[in-house]
This record gives sequence, structure tokens and C-alpha cells, in this order.
Amino acid sequence: MSEVQATGAAELEGILAAAERAAGELRRGDRFARAAYLTAVADALDAEADALVPIGRRETNLPEARLRGELKRTTFQLRIFAETAVDGRYLDARIDHAEPEWPMGAPRPDLRRTHIPLGPVAVFSASNFPFAFSVAGGDTASALAAGCPVVVKAHSGHLDLSRETARVVGEALSAAGAPAGSFAIVYGTDAGRTLVQDRRIKAAGFTGSIPGGRALFDLAQSRPDPIPFYGELGSNNPVFVTEAADRARGGDIAREFIGSFTLGAGQFCTKPGTVLVPKGSRMLAALREAELPAGAAMLNERIREGYVQAVRALQAGGARVVNAGFDPYGEAPSPILHIVSAAEVLANPGALLEECFGPSSLVVEYDSEAQLPELASVFEGQLTASLQAEEGDDVAELVDVLAVKAGRVLWNQWPTGVSVTYAQQHGGPYPASTASGSTSVGTAAIDRFLRPVAYQGFPQGLLPDELREDPANPVPRLVDGR
Amino acid sequence: MSEVQATGAAELEGILAAAERAAGELRRGDRFARAAYLTAVADALDAEADALVPIGRRETNLPEARLRGELKRTTFQLRIFAETAVDGRYLDARIDHAEPEWPMGAPRPDLRRTHIPLGPVAVFSASNFPFAFSVAGGDTASALAAGCPVVVKAHSGHLDLSRETARVVGEALSAAGAPAGSFAIVYGTDAGRTLVQDRRIKAAGFTGSIPGGRALFDLAQSRPDPIPFYGELGSNNPVFVTEAADRARGGDIAREFIGSFTLGAGQFCTKPGTVLVPKGSRMLAALREAELPAGAAMLNERIREGYVQAVRALQAGGARVVNAGFDPYGEAPSPILHIVSAAEVLANPGALLEECFGPSSLVVEYDSEAQLPELASVFEGQLTASLQAEEGDDVAELVDVLAVKAGRVLWNQWPTGVSVTYAQQHGGPYPASTASGSTSVGTAAIDRFLRPVAYQGFPQGLLPDELREDPANPVPRLVDGR
Repeated sequence: MSEVQATGAAELEGILAAAERAAGELRRGDRFARAAYLTAVADALDAEADALVPIGRRETNLPEARLRGELKRTTFQLRIFAETAVDGRYLDARIDHAEPEWPMGAPRPDLRRTHIPLGPVAVFSASNFPFAFSVAGGDTASALAAGCPVVVKAHSGHLDLSRETARVVGEALSAAGAPAGSFAIVYGTDAGRTLVQDRRIKAAGFTGSIPGGRALFDLAQSRPDPIPFYGELGSNNPVFVTEAADRARGGDIAREFIGSFTLGAGQFCTKPGTVLVPKGSRMLAALREAELPAGAAMLNERIREGYVQAVRALQAGGARVVNAGFDPYGEAPSPILHIVSAAEVLANPGALLEECFGPSSLVVEYDSEAQLPELASVFEGQLTASLQAEEGDDVAELVDVLAVKAGRVLWNQWPTGVSVTYAQQHGGPYPASTASGSTSVGTAAIDRFLRPVAYQGFPQGLLPDELREDPANPVPRLVDGR
Repeated sequence: MSEVQATGAAELEGILAAAERAAGELRRGDRFARAAYLTAVADALDAEADALVPIGRRETNLPEARLRGELKRTTFQLRIFAETAVDGRYLDARIDHAEPEWPMGAPRPDLRRTHIPLGPVAVFSASNFPFAFSVAGGDTASALAAGCPVVVKAHSGHLDLSRETARVVGEALSAAGAPAGSFAIVYGTDAGRTLVQDRRIKAAGFTGSIPGGRALFDLAQSRPDPIPFYGELGSNNPVFVTEAADRARGGDIAREFIGSFTLGAGQFCTKPGTVLVPKGSRMLAALREAELPAGAAMLNERIREGYVQAVRALQAGGARVVNAGFDPYGEAPSPILHIVSAAEVLANPGALLEECFGPSSLVVEYDSEAQLPELASVFEGQLTASLQAEEGDDVAELVDVLAVKAGRVLWNQWPTGVSVTYAQQHGGPYPASTASGSTSVGTAAIDRFLRPVAYQGFPQGLLPDELREDPANPVPRLVDGR
């Protein structure tokens, strides 16, 4: 057991007061300084890998190679947000020069619009990515890049790793000259609830379960001054296999699918939880005969219990076992696959399409491809939706429905593995996200922690640099609408 | 009295079903078609000005010149959103080509990100702009430009004008070939509450009071699937006059200020409700002696009653009359000015800085400019904050605080009159807006009704045009981060 103590009220008050002070300093500072802070954190975490990874091993049961890979991803993420801060496109700087003949019917004043940081951000870290969606993960990196101080609420599943990571982050920030209060960590559910309701916290990022995320979302929205709550809650990540794809590659698709839904013991928010296959498919035959990978210990006992319960609920909803490993309900649950018909899903989508966090997936047999758009439409909002299809397939209508349902649509690829890039989208309609207009992965995640401000008729010397006629550090701008 | 009837449940159901169907057609259609719809609406409204303006006169007491100007602004706004749709920058199209050596530690897939419309939008129109923030106002124009069907909830203050405007809009859309269901109007509070809770409505725009807006916001956030609620609720729009500005131009500032706070009988969300002046100022002397403009009938009796109540509350909070016209509490309330000290404001900001919708403003006398940042910090979130200052003034700290408090900061200009431009920002921290990251005026307002979608590994033929290697209609794009 970790000896980390829950954060008390007095300590929390000090953290929030310091975060509020830091918000002003970061806002008045420049984005090049923030980039340097992020790079310093990335370097420090890389340097401490040998100390941090074993703590993660002990607390999460995740294998060493996975944790080392995840830490590399995490420091890459910090560096790409440093690059994003320097780049300055995120400011969406716009200049309208005064225009006496503006056709609106009244002269247009000189208006210049940029974005400023929202202020201190609460980050609720996830159980399943102890580095990449945790203390120094994407929410923290994007908030700091935006110029917002961060107060992390540590996940109870890896308290020691959280504390050690926070120590490395805090020391690196301090050594790099970041304002005191730019970063802090708190422990315990009460501290988390207090955070999201405190007037000094101006936004929150969350990755976790639907009930936990919704409870915090509700607190954030019922404040006297509601704040944006960027929650990534849950997703089923359906995969639609066409008849032609099954004929051409049914066996390969089955093999790849098994790799995807069992990766990391199925503990990914993008795990394919449902796969829709044609009746009598080669894929199903291959799935029945496949030797599934061995079971693996899950992140912790609470998650394992929840998983076994969810599998039982699926079975109570009528799902029949297609294939399973040695001990699907044991300490290290073996992967398990169930099956239902399309008609059963249409009759009872609530029970059958619930997220099941672990090495399980549900095969849905459909009678005809013409059913696929209707089947797609019964899903709730998703992080991802995937097609396994051939180029000649008539899937335009299905793709349209999937774009409405999901933040990311994949073609002959698998949703697990979320690349940190400029064009990534991780988020989708509720409950995939509580803010479907945003992403929690990729450089656009910085937009969540910014607010537009326009300056009207201002003298050059009082404008932010990016809005001046001759900026010291030019950024791409929209000038007079061009 | 208008004979418009409240919309019944059966009619509302038909409207929502049609809006849902139209959402699919608009999403699958192209942005050039939507631009043509908007232009057709603008042309039709311009052509019907002689019919519409007299109805507005009768229902709102607003003068003919004002209504004609507002209609011109409204049709300009529709056309600039048509231009925005054609321009395509709003898509924020991003392409990451596959990169096997991506330094994250895993190959980067081909990822292409664009934005799609959210779906049907509920628009709650305002009392005080019967054209520009109403049936065919900014929310409607930006939602249609984004590709979202619109269901307007008419404001009870101008039902006949709403019905007639809706008729013109509906006929123009239909003649231009817009999908049936792209636009509808409903009447009555119950219909409005139903709208914001219906699963087919995917976002809402609102301009109005804090209590009304907050009630609808709460409904939207407590849905099983919460939706974005873009509410513009209330603002006090403080003006900070420096000592040097008062010495140099105190009399002129007083004259301009009177013009601004009495414009349109003070019924603007950007009316300057507080002006902070140095003790013993020339401006105050000028205000005491000024002949205030004559009173004008307010929009309706309910608003007049609320206004008189708010003025009485200000007086109960300790505000003393500086100057007032003939009958400040009458049928056509004469403008009235009150005064308090800085110390009184700091002791009781809640009572003294509440929005007072009508021809009233509050002078706050400060002792020293050093107090201004502290005074600025007691205001709630604002649409605007203004400075009257001279170029040599040391106001950097004050400007920083004002940017944190307001969406738009003005220098030696007045906040009334919100130009529709590319760089405009109309919105600010709560309660100025329920979504401070957005604007309800200016071309960036289109962003409110869009959602990002990324396509991974897709064949060219199934991608939206803006994401193809050789698009038929190129738009500016971020390619591989550049």
C-alpha cells in the first residue's frame, strides 16, 4: 500500500492560492518561456526513467516495455506542445484594420483578437496510462503550453508513481524558472471534488469512467460560475467488417482484431468492444478457432472486479461465448469473445453495447450490409469507429453515420494506439467526451485552455506582441479576413 | 396583442423530426450551397424591409432609423457568414501524412482532421435586437453557415415580427433549395424548454437575462447527453477613466459617455453601466451639469418595470443621484446617473455592479489610479471593459486585469456598437457568457456549431473534399504541422 496521504484543506488552499498567483505570471510571460519549461520537464522525466518505470510496474501490473514506451510517448508529447507554443498558430491571431466604409452600415473599428490562458486547470488523471494520461500527460502538457497552471488530482491506482512523477515535474519546472505554483498535485477524492468547485480553477481535464466523470462534470456545471469540463469518459469503438473484406481477409482481420482487443489486457479507451461481421463469416470461423493470448493481470483489483461484472452483465443480456482462454474470470483474466445477432443488438443496445474495460469483445452477426447504417446509429457517441472494407465497397452512407457518431473514423486500421500528432482527434459525442468540440490528444488539445480576447483601438505598445503591426515574433494571422 | 399561438407538442415533434432529417442533408451537402441559402435569406429580408420595419416599430418602440440600420446589419451578417462558409478556413483542415519514423516511438498513421456540423441548433432570440439577435440574427446565420438546421424560439417581445421574419426566411430557404426542415420557429416558454432538452437538438444559442439563460443552461447540462449552451447573459461594461484622460478630455469623455449609456434607451448588452473617474474629476463636473437626452419608451412594459426596480435597488445599495432627466421612473424613463465611492464598491460589489438594463449608469469615484486594478478585479465576467486614457499612462497592469475580466477591451472608444467582423469577440467569462471560449458576434461564431472528426488511413474517394490530396475546392490547411 502506498503511504501517500489525502491532501488536507489547508494544504489545498495554499496550492490554489499559489496557482492563482502563477496564472498571472504565466499569462504575462511569453510562450517561448513556457516551451522551455515543457522541454525541461520532458528531459527530466527521460532522465528519471529507470527510477519511475519500476514504481509503475509495481503499482499497475503493466509490463516494463509498455511503461518505457508510454514514458517515451509522454515526453514526446511534452515536446510537441513546446513546439506548439512556439509556433503560435494556436493564438488564432486576427487583425481587422479600421474601415470607415465597412458595408455593415457603420465604420469598422481597429479590432485585434488573440487568445489568453483560462487560468488554473484541474487535471484528473487516468488509471490506465500512468504516464501519458496522468501527472505529466496530455492534459498537463497542453494546459501548461496554453499558459495555465496545473493542479493534478492523482489517480488512486498509482499514487507512488504520481508522487514521484510530480516531484520530477516540480523540480524541473522550478529549475527552468517557471513561476512557483505553476504545478501541484493533490490526493484523494475530496480534494478532487473541492478542486473542480473552487472559484480559482477555470477548467478541468478528466480521463476515466462515465459515472466518475459525470459526477465531476455535474459539479463543474453547477458552480455559480460554470467552467469547461473536458471529460473523456467511455467508448465502445465498434468495428464494421464488410462482406468483401471478410471474403478477402477474414482470417487476417480476425488475427489483427484479437491483437487489438487484448492489447494491454484490453484496458484502453479505444479498445474495439464490438465487431460487426457478416453472417457465416470467415472472420467468425477464425475467431472460434483462434488461440487467444494468455491472460494478464489487470491494473488493480477494483478494475478486475468491475470487468468481471461487466462480462457477466453482457452474458445476462444474452451474449454467448464464442471463444475464451483458460480462466476468463480469474486473477489474470484470459481474453473472452461473445456473440449476438444484429436483431438482439437492435432490441437491447443499452445492455449489449456498454463499455467493458478489459480483454473482452462482442461479435455482432449481421444479415446484410444494408443493416450497417442502422446498426451504427444505435451506438452512443464514440471515440472511434472503424471500417474493415475493400475499396469497391458501397460504404459512403455508413461512413457518414460513423462520422456523426465518433471523433475518429478508421479505414482498415485498428483504434488502439492513439498517435500524438497535429491532426489527431481524441474525443467524440457524449459519453465519449463531455465536450465533443475538443480533443484530449494531439496539438489541438491546447485550444481547450484558452479564451479569445479582442482589443479595440489599442495603441501598439499595449497590444500583445502577436497583434502588433511589427511583431517581434511573427505568427500566422488573419488580416482583414485574409 | 399578437395572435401568435404557443407551439403545441405535436407541431414541435414534427419540427424536430424535420430538423433531424435536414441535418443529414445539410451535412452531406456542400458549403457553397449553404452560402447560397444565406445570401438568398439576406436578399429576401432586404426586399421585405418596408413590410418588416413597421411591425418592429409597433412591437418594440424602437425608432425606424434604428430598425432599418439593424436590418442592414442583419443582412450584412448573413452575407459575411456566407463568405465564411465559402472561405473554408473554419474547417481548420489538417493533414498528417503517414510517418514511419515518428519520434513518438510508434509510426504515425495517415490522419486527416476537419469539422462537421453538430446537428440541429436551438436559437433563443433576444428582446433588444429584434433583427440582429433574433430570428435571422447571428446565431441563426452562424449555425446555418456551419451546416446546422435552426429552430428559433421567438422572443415574446416581438412575436409578429418574429413570425413575419420567419416566413421570409423559410420561403427564401425553400426557394434557394435548402432541405425542408433547415429552419423553423417555435413560440412559448414550454416549447423553448422542450427544445433544449430534446435529444435531436445538439447545441443552443441564447441572448438574454442571467436568470433566463442560466435556467436553460442548467437544463442543457443536466440532459443525459449534455450539449453546448452558448448563452450571452449579462454585462456591466465598466469604463476606466485615468487622471490624465480626465484632465485632457474630461468634458468630451462625459459627452461621449452620455451618448453611449443612453443609446437605444440603454438597452444594449454592451451599455457602459459603470464609469470609474478620479476624485474631483472634470468629467463628473460635466456630468452634473449636462443636459441628459430625453427619455424614450423602452422595449416593453416588463422590461421597464425590471429597469425601475434595478434603479431602486442601486439606490437602496447606497448610490446617490448625480443627474437625472425629467422623469426617470416614468413611461419613457429619462436617463439617470448615480454615484458611489470606490470604497463603497469594494465593500458591496454585488449590489452596486449588477447589470441595470436601461438608461442608467453608475459613476465610481476613485482616490488614486493605483486602486484601479483592484477595482477592476471585483467585477464579474464582462463582455467589454474600456479605458479612457492617454498614451503616457501607466496602465499595463490594468489592461492585463481587464483582459482577464472581459472578452473585448477598448481604448478610447465606447462599447456600444458591436461591429460584425473577422476579429470581433462578443463573449467573456461568466456571466457575460456561459461559454467564454466562444463568440456570438463575428465570423468566429461559426466555430460554436462544429465538431472535429479525424479520418485515419482513408482512401481518397471517401474523404471530404477538403482533406483530399487534390481537392476540388482547396482551403488553407495545416499539412504535417506546417
